Amino acid sequence: MNWIILLVAFTSINLPVAQQHLFTFNEQEYSSTSSCKELKQRFGFSTDGLYYLSTASGVVYQTYCDMTTAGGGWTLVASVHENNLYGKCTTGDRWSSQQGGSPNVPEGDGSWSNTVTFGTAEAATSDDFKNPGYYEITAEDVAVWHVPNNERVDQWKVKSFLRYHTETKFLNSYSGNLYNLFKLLPVKFGVGTCPANHGPSVPLVYDLGDATSNHNLYGPNIRALTQPGFITFRAINTEGAAMAICSGVKPTGCQNEHCCIGGGGNFPQESPRQCGDFTGFDWDGYGTGVGWSASKQVTEAAVLIFYR
Amino acid sequence: MNWIILLVAFTSINLPVAQQHLFTFNEQEYSSTSSCKELKQRFGFSTDGLYYLSTASGVVYQTYCDMTTAGGGWTLVASVHENNLYGKCTTGDRWSSQQGGSPNVPEGDGSWSNTVTFGTAEAATSDDFKNPGYYEITAEDVAVWHVPNNERVDQWKVKSFLRYHTETKFLNSYSGNLYNLFKLLPVKFGVGTCPANHGPSVPLVYDLGDATSNHNLYGPNIRALTQPGFITFRAINTEGAAMAICSGVKPTGCQNEHCCIGGGGNFPQESPRQCGDFTGFDWDGYGTGVGWSASKQVTEAAVLIFYR
Amino acid sequence: MNWIILLVAFTSINLPVAQQHLFTFNEQEYSSTSSCKELKQRFGFSTDGLYYLSTASGVVYQTYCDMTTAGGGWTLVASVHENNLYGKCTTGDRWSSQQGGSPNVPEGDGSWSNTVTFGTAEAATSDDFKNPGYYEITAEDVAVWHVPNNERVDQWKVKSFLRYHTETKFLNSYSGNLYNLFKLLPVKFGVGTCPANHGPSVPLVYDLGDATSNHNLYGPNIRALTQPGFITFRAINTEGAAMAICSGVKPTGCQNEHCCIGGGGNFPQESPRQCGDFTGFDWDGYGTGVGWSASKQVTEAAVLIFYR
Repeated sequence: MNWIILLVAFTSINLPVAQQHLFTFNEQEYSSTSSCKELKQRFGFSTDGLYYLSTASGVVYQTYCDMTTAGGGWTLVASVHENNLYGKCTTGDRWSSQQGGSPNVPEGDGSWSNTVTFGTAEAATSDDFKNPGYYEITAEDVAVWHVPNNERVDQWKVKSFLRYHTETKFLNSYSGNLYNLFKLLPVKFGVGTCPANHGPSVPLVYDLGDATSNHNLYGPNIRALTQPGFITFRAINTEGAAMAICSGVKPTGCQNEHCCIGGGGNFPQESPRQCGDFTGFDWDGYGTGVGWSASKQVTEAAVLIFYR
Repeated sequence: MNWIILLVAFTSINLPVAQQHLFTFNEQEYSSTSSCKELKQRFGFSTDGLYYLSTASGVVYQTYCDMTTAGGGWTLVASVHENNLYGKCTTGDRWSSQQGGSPNVPEGDGSWSNTVTFGTAEAATSDDFKNPGYYEITAEDVAVWHVPNNERVDQWKVKSFLRYHTETKFLNSYSGNLYNLFKLLPVKFGVGTCPANHGPSVPLVYDLGDATSNHNLYGPNIRALTQPGFITFRAINTEGAAMAICSGVKPTGCQNEHCCIGGGGNFPQESPRQCGDFTGFDWDGYGTGVGWSASKQVTEAAVLIFYR
Repeated sequence: MNWIILLVAFTSINLPVAQQHLFTFNEQEYSSTSSCKELKQRFGFSTDGLYYLSTASGVVYQTYCDMTTAGGGWTLVASVHENNLYGKCTTGDRWSSQQGGSPNVPEGDGSWSNTVTFGTAEAATSDDFKNPGYYEITAEDVAVWHVPNNERVDQWKVKSFLRYHTETKFLNSYSGNLYNLFKLLPVKFGVGTCPANHGPSVPLVYDLGDATSNHNLYGPNIRALTQPGFITFRAINTEGAAMAICSGVKPTGCQNEHCCIGGGGNFPQESPRQCGDFTGFDWDGYGTGVGWSASKQVTEAAVLIFYR
C-alpha cells in the first residue's frame, strides 16, 4: 500500500505547537495518482473536472481531467495562451520567448523541454499553463482543445470550437511525452531545415469540428501549403526557425509560422515579427483571416494539450 | 470533538459530498471552508493571521484573515503593490499592464476580471497578490488597508496607516465580488466617458485614519477634484482610460489617474506616463505630494483588499 | 476542542514506502518540520531528495535536502539561474532586476531581502528558485553547489562540478539566515564603497572541487584581484554597485562584477552591461574565460544555496 498524504487544514500562525499534534487516520487509502487515466481506471472517476494529481517525487498539483471523450482519462498538461499578439516575444510568451526575438536566444524560454512550470488549471484559458504532468506522465496519445480565452472551467467543453485526439500511440516512440519528444527534437533556431527535419505528423480523430473546419482556421495562403487532419510537432520554417505544434495540419511548404504555435526565440524574417506564442498568425493583420493571417477565432483561443 | 480537516485528494468539483467523505476518515468532519467569515462563524476562529481556505473546485490557498475589525471575518483577496513607479506598464504591473502602455492592449493584463492568480499572502506587501478568493468568494463589503511595503505579516496591522471598510453591502448589486463587478464594468480603455460611466462610489467607515487623512495622501490638485470618504470602482479619465479603484475618494473631475490605482493598458495622455499599477501618482515628481503627485507614504505602501 | 491540523507527508522520491508510513497515520505525532536538519535529526531521514517542509506560519513547500554531505541536513533555499546572459536586467533576472538597469531601481527586484518567493525545487536548475526557507529558517552555515543548467533533480549531485560549505557558523552573527544578513547589508546601489563596506568573507570547506578549480572558473583578470577559498557576501564595485554573493572568492580589488552574482539594479559602468543575475560574467565575450570573462562552465550552471 502506497500512502502519500497531503492534508491541509485551517492553520493559524498563532497556534501553540501542542495543538498541532496528533492526528488519527484510519484505514483509508490515499494513493499517489499520477494521471487522469489512473484516476479513471483505478478509482472509477468519470466526471470531467478538476482533480489533484501527484508526481513520483511528491509534487501535488491540480489539473483538469476529461473523463468522457473517447473513453476518457485525458490529463490536461499544458495550455498555450496568446496574451498579446502585438507583443513579439515579450512578457507572457512563455511557450516561445519572453526575452525578445534574437539570435542570442535560439531556444527562447525553453519551456517545451525543461521542467519549469507555470499558471494554474483554473486560469488555463487566461494564461499559459504547464504542470508537472507535462514532463512526468508516461502517455501514448495527445488531445487538443481550442477554447475561447477567459472561459471558466465548467464552460471549456461547451464553448470549445475544436477538439481532437490522436490514436496511433505515437508517444511510445518518443519516451512517453512531449517533454521527451522535444528533448529529442529541440524547438530551437538552427537545429535543422524545412522540410527535412520536421518532427512527426500524426493523424487526428475529431471529437468536435473536422479536418476542414480546423484547416479553415488559418489563412488561405498557408492552407494552400498544408494538408489537413494532422498534428505536427517541431516544424521548421524557411529561415530555420523552429516551432512546437501545428494544430490540425501537416506542412507541405515552409511558411509554417502562420499555422504553428510555440517556438524558439529567433525568427529571422523581419525579426521579431514572427516571434511569440502564436508566431506569425497576424502577418496580414490581427485576426483578419486573409492572406497569411489566421482567423480571429483561433487567434483568441487557448490551445489546451492533454495526455493519455 | 470538532475536527476541522481538509483532505486534499481526489477532489472533483462535481463530486457529491458523500464521495468526498470516502476519502477522508472515520468520525472526522470534512469541511471545505471558503472564507474567513465562515472560519469565524462556523468554527470560532478569532485571531488575525494566516489561514488556509479552499474553493468549491478544491483549490487550496493560504491567506490572511482579519478576525477582529468591525466583527471580523475579512478575507484578504488581493494586494496592489507598486514595485517601480518609474516603470510604466512594465514587469510587476500586474494590476494594469506588463506589456507596455499602448492602444494595442486596452485592457492590459486583465487581472481585475480574469482568474489568473499570483503572489503569496506572506509577500503581499512586497509583490502583487491575487488569490482564488478574489473571484470565488461571495461577499457583501470590502475593506482596504494601506500598509508600507515589505512589512512582515505580523506587522501589517500595526504598521498600516489607513484602514477602512464599507457597510452598505454594495457587492450584493454586483454578483458578490469585484471579479464580477469588473466583468460588468471592465477596466479597459474606451469603455466609457468621465463622469458618465464611472462605477459605484461607496461610503466608508474608517477603522484607522479618517476621510481627511485619507484625502491628504493625494496631491493638492486632485484633492480639489475629489470628495473624501468613498471608495470608487472603475473610474474613467479625460482621455477615456479606465482605472479600477480610487481609495478614499469620489471623483468630481476627470484627472483620476492621480488618485486611482490599477487600470487597463492604454493611457493616452503623454503615453505611457500614466500607465502602471499606481497610474500617474508621480506626475509632479516621485512622492513629492505637490501638484498632482501623491505623497511618498501612499506611493510606497501596498493596498490590501479584503472581502466580507 | 478545535484541532488544527496541518499534515503533509514527508515524501522523498527515494524513501522506501515503509518509512513514509511512520509519519502519516494512527497515533503518530504530527510535527511541522521547518528544515532538512530537523528532518534528519528528529526523524532520521538520511536520503538526498525532495521533501516537504513547512514554516511557522503554515506555508508548505517542497525542497531538496542534502542528507549526506558533511553530516547532512542541508536545506536548499534558493537557486540563482542565468536564463539569458545577453539580457541585461530583463525578464528572468529575479536576483538582480527585471526592470532594466537604472538609477531608478537601486535595489532592483529586492529579492535578497524580501519575502517574495518564486520557482520550484524541481526546476531549480532551469529557473530562479526561492522558497520560504530562505527567510524563515534559522541556520548557522551555508553550502553552495554549481550544477549545469537543466539537470533533473536526481542528477544534480552527480553532475555538479563544485560543492562547498562553510563551517564557521557565521550566520549566528547575522540573525540566522541570508535574508536577515541582506536586510543588514542591503544589495543596493550606493550603500557603500569598495572595499570598506564589503560584507563577510567566510572560509570554505570543499566537498567537490577545490579552491583552485573554483578560482579558475573566473577570468584571469579577476583571478588576479581575488583570493580563493572564501564565499563573500554583499560585495561592492568601483562604481558603488552592490552584489550579493561571490562564490569561492574574497575580493582584493573592486572589479567584483566579474566574479559575484545577484545584485541591485544599477551598475553604472557602461550601464546596463553589468546588470543581471550573473552581472558582468560576459565582459570579454560570452563564456570565453579570457580577460574578465568567466568560463562557459560556470556561466551555464545554476548556483544552488543551502542552509544548515
